[in-house]
Amino acid sequence: MKEKMELRLAGSGGQGVILGAIILAEAALENDNYAVQSQSYGPEARGGMCKAEVIIGKDEIDFPKIENPDVLLALSQSSLDKYCNDTNENCMIIADSSLEIPNTKNKVMSVPIIETARNVIHNQQTANIVALGAINTLVPMVGYEALEKAVLKYVPSHAAEQNKKALQEGQRIAQSLILQ
Amino acid sequence: MKEKMELRLAGSGGQGVILGAIILAEAALENDNYAVQSQSYGPEARGGMCKAEVIIGKDEIDFPKIENPDVLLALSQSSLDKYCNDTNENCMIIADSSLEIPNTKNKVMSVPIIETARNVIHNQQTANIVALGAINTLVPMVGYEALEKAVLKYVPSHAAEQNKKALQEGQRIAQSLILQ
Repeated sequence: MKEKMELRLAGSGGQGVILGAIILAEAALENDNYAVQSQSYGPEARGGMCKAEVIIGKDEIDFPKIENPDVLLALSQSSLDKYCNDTNENCMIIADSSLEIPNTKNKVMSVPIIETARNVIHNQQTANIVALGAINTLVPMVGYEALEKAVLKYVPSHAAEQNKKALQEGQRIAQSLILQ
Repeated sequence: MKEKMELRLAGSGGQGVILGAIILAEAALENDNYAVQSQSYGPEARGGMCKAEVIIGKDEIDFPKIENPDVLLALSQSSLDKYCNDTNENCMIIADSSLEIPNTKNKVMSVPIIETARNVIHNQQTANIVALGAINTLVPMVGYEALEKAVLKYVPSHAAEQNKKALQEGQRIAQSLILQ
């Protein structure tokens, strides 16, 4: 891992990107790393867009604001359009496969996140957990066990098995893209 | 309201301080203000301590880190001991009434938050919502309706009525302290 990884998770309200970011930060802690997780609320959020950020580092993180994201996850068209060019060229963009990819110099991975949550897990609300499995496979940041443990800490206990499967499926669909 | 209000919510893991902070930030947005909400994860969090921060402002917030908290909420002894002197003198400390108040020059309000959640709402997990009702009565930051709307957005729908009551009770117990 680089000394510091910066992630921006973006989507529309209700897609669970804040919870996804909190889970990722918890998983980093589980791996004895440091993390800062934040979200800003302003007029843009009133339009239904939601953005959460995570910085994971080996050492304490002094500046909690993302400077150059290494990964952008976009689960909605408006969030992809808004943020896809607000990155440096090394930032990997992970976009839901339902989205139209704008012109960009960045590497874009189109991943069937929402489709998998809906048709394989049969619960679209697990899209954020499918996304975590996919992100962490494409750009490994935390151990799989740490991630699973953090997921189970934050989802309701009656949905534990469903969310474990969502994480596995996210890993699997990303893996199949890598091997293509 | 001042141009900017800074809050630190601290407790032990599982007391819901992160969710409390997210709800408060959402309520600020509902009132057309700006907010930044963040949490840092590091070795101190492994000890079971949990700290979340919120900054609410009339204008966009450039620097997302708290500099001088206006309010410190402490729901556990270790978080109170750790943070109560890490404030300026104008910071109001809102401590659960079960805690022993350390020596401090700050104004301290001892509020029966956990007791109210346990004995009046009959669900200790609502302590964070009781706390929000109390904080926002002692230090008004967001409208009551905006706060209630944000609570209902984040709690499970089957627990909506219970959490509405928790918010009301938090307001009531704080009000009774003001009038003493």
